[in-house]
Amino acid sequence: MSAFSRFTPLASALPSTVPFVGPEAIERQRGLAVSARIGANENGFGPAASVFAAMREEAGNIWKYNDPENFALREALAAHLGISAANIAIGSGIDELLGQIVRLVIEPGAPVVTSLGAYPTFNFHVAGFGGRLVTVPYANDREDLEGLLDAVKRENAPLVYFANPDNPMGSWWDADSIVAFARALPETTLMVLDEAYSETGPAGSLPSISSLIELPNVVRTRTFSKAYGLAGSRTGYAISTAGTAQAFDKIRNHFGMNRLATAAALAALKDQAYLVEVVGKIHAGRERIGGIARANGLQPLPSATNFVAIDAGRDGAYARAIVDGLMEHGVFIRMPGVAPLNRCIRVSVGPETDMALLEETLPQVLKQIRR
Amino acid sequence: MSAFSRFTPLASALPSTVPFVGPEAIERQRGLAVSARIGANENGFGPAASVFAAMREEAGNIWKYNDPENFALREALAAHLGISAANIAIGSGIDELLGQIVRLVIEPGAPVVTSLGAYPTFNFHVAGFGGRLVTVPYANDREDLEGLLDAVKRENAPLVYFANPDNPMGSWWDADSIVAFARALPETTLMVLDEAYSETGPAGSLPSISSLIELPNVVRTRTFSKAYGLAGSRTGYAISTAGTAQAFDKIRNHFGMNRLATAAALAALKDQAYLVEVVGKIHAGRERIGGIARANGLQPLPSATNFVAIDAGRDGAYARAIVDGLMEHGVFIRMPGVAPLNRCIRVSVGPETDMALLEETLPQVLKQIRR
Repeated sequence: MSAFSRFTPLASALPSTVPFVGPEAIERQRGLAVSARIGANENGFGPAASVFAAMREEAGNIWKYNDPENFALREALAAHLGISAANIAIGSGIDELLGQIVRLVIEPGAPVVTSLGAYPTFNFHVAGFGGRLVTVPYANDREDLEGLLDAVKRENAPLVYFANPDNPMGSWWDADSIVAFARALPETTLMVLDEAYSETGPAGSLPSISSLIELPNVVRTRTFSKAYGLAGSRTGYAISTAGTAQAFDKIRNHFGMNRLATAAALAALKDQAYLVEVVGKIHAGRERIGGIARANGLQPLPSATNFVAIDAGRDGAYARAIVDGLMEHGVFIRMPGVAPLNRCIRVSVGPETDMALLEETLPQVLKQIRR
Repeated sequence: MSAFSRFTPLASALPSTVPFVGPEAIERQRGLAVSARIGANENGFGPAASVFAAMREEAGNIWKYNDPENFALREALAAHLGISAANIAIGSGIDELLGQIVRLVIEPGAPVVTSLGAYPTFNFHVAGFGGRLVTVPYANDREDLEGLLDAVKRENAPLVYFANPDNPMGSWWDADSIVAFARALPETTLMVLDEAYSETGPAGSLPSISSLIELPNVVRTRTFSKAYGLAGSRTGYAISTAGTAQAFDKIRNHFGMNRLATAAALAALKDQAYLVEVVGKIHAGRERIGGIARANGLQPLPSATNFVAIDAGRDGAYARAIVDGLMEHGVFIRMPGVAPLNRCIRVSVGPETDMALLEETLPQVLKQIRR
């Protein structure tokens, strides 16, 4: 299986590991079928009926490239957020935008600050551009703002990643703390404020757009993959100063967006009533998961997201046994990757059939592994 | 419009120019509406009915991320081509794959050989990773294989780009010449053989898969955007040795594919009868465009693609006047970017209504600009 002999030294040194193994791969590898897909923080309630209608309507235009300027979607997002379209960059999900941000900022060897156990795909991109990860442990299952700021200053890091609400723990900071953190950063440090779960947090956890829009060193990333129910569509966006947003145009894949994805995002944004309805279901689903956890003697952590981290009370091997055991019953969940977070399992909110299957199988799995 | 102050020197030095201005931007800028969209080598015949059905069927799963391994599509392509799924990498169109290839091979300052006037998006990626373009003029409106080989050797270039059939000229080489070129390359030079238009070339112009599959320094790129009619879907693939294909996994956006795009590609690949039908229409459309050109005293060039380059007989300014004049009538076409290719205009095959509008408006435009 010979490969080209002259890839860059950086490319040659990279492992072929992937950020996440998909549920389909688990099904193939273990010969199992997923019945309850509640591991990837997808949204099993799906998008609004109006979104399906918009995709159907746009299908006939699939032979045309999408507008490379993403004009309509940027205008709609700008109107929704009370900013200018120039403040917005569109990408194929936050994942793609994170890769672009790292590429714009990181040269080989440059330090990048993130939390130990935070989003693996960000780390994947940092490695891919030769950055050097500097990690700060979580404090009380939250990202440690003070520790992150200290690390940024100590390392003179050009880039720091922070998610609010947080994945994989579901925890959050109040808006004032986030804004204070952003303002305390050196101007020469770009902050990625990943707000993939912004729609599902409690009041007071989401900084206003105006509170950060004038900081050239802050890029907020959001997505239609979570509350909007469009993970398979791949549409994310970045919010920043116009000058910073324009930098994406230097390197992005201008003809990279799927035409139906754009139509779906436009329709989803328009249907805020449906979003409110789904967010209500997500809140209820978090309670449902919490109840199942407690009924099994496990401790659910407070969550601002569409998933719940559940403290299984022992170590990573024990949590892994629960994850693997549930998969034997067709229940796909995930867990944090590093200690001490990996004492937890992570369960995404899903429709009641998924919750019921979790409720039915979790005690069986626990009984088996506690033998 | 302040921007972050610490982008990499490379990123800071990049212009915000884009590879292509989309027709939507032209409409917005000039206050015109496109009636005949025959400028971007899209396929106005669209995909098969079976493709629309597959997209409708998959829509309900849009809340799920696409399988990051693209297993089903890679298996189907492998079966279709008589190779292994390990020989295939999937991307959001050839454009994305080109960016990945450049990233894997090019460090700042490294020479990259291509033809003068060839695909601008490839050049965009080369610039984006700091590569140094070394261009070889076309010879008789074809890419100059001998000249490209000379440039590769002279520069000790790690990367060379070659499209067969060619865009923007529509010309082609026979398969034997392509294979001989690939085999003559140093092992330390990766050849991108861009086969976006592979389905529409004449017999004997497409190297067999087996003729190149064992060369680790050849990556062939293909797409569902052209003959398959799915430009807005964004699905392309690369064919290479398994070792070279695996390198994409080190850097690609694993969760980047749209779920409906994958379903559409699978269905399109299955419906080869429809492909044959559309290719027939494309062949007829090329004749139709040629006839319109000749009726106006212009010279159509032979074409192996879904477009025809038409020699307008004068310079780039004259061709530009035709392009701009046609747009006044709602006819969107494009033209090559550099001399001497830019004596031509480039017209994509479209449905008869588009062809008829071209037939009607071209004489008016020529009359006006010949005054």
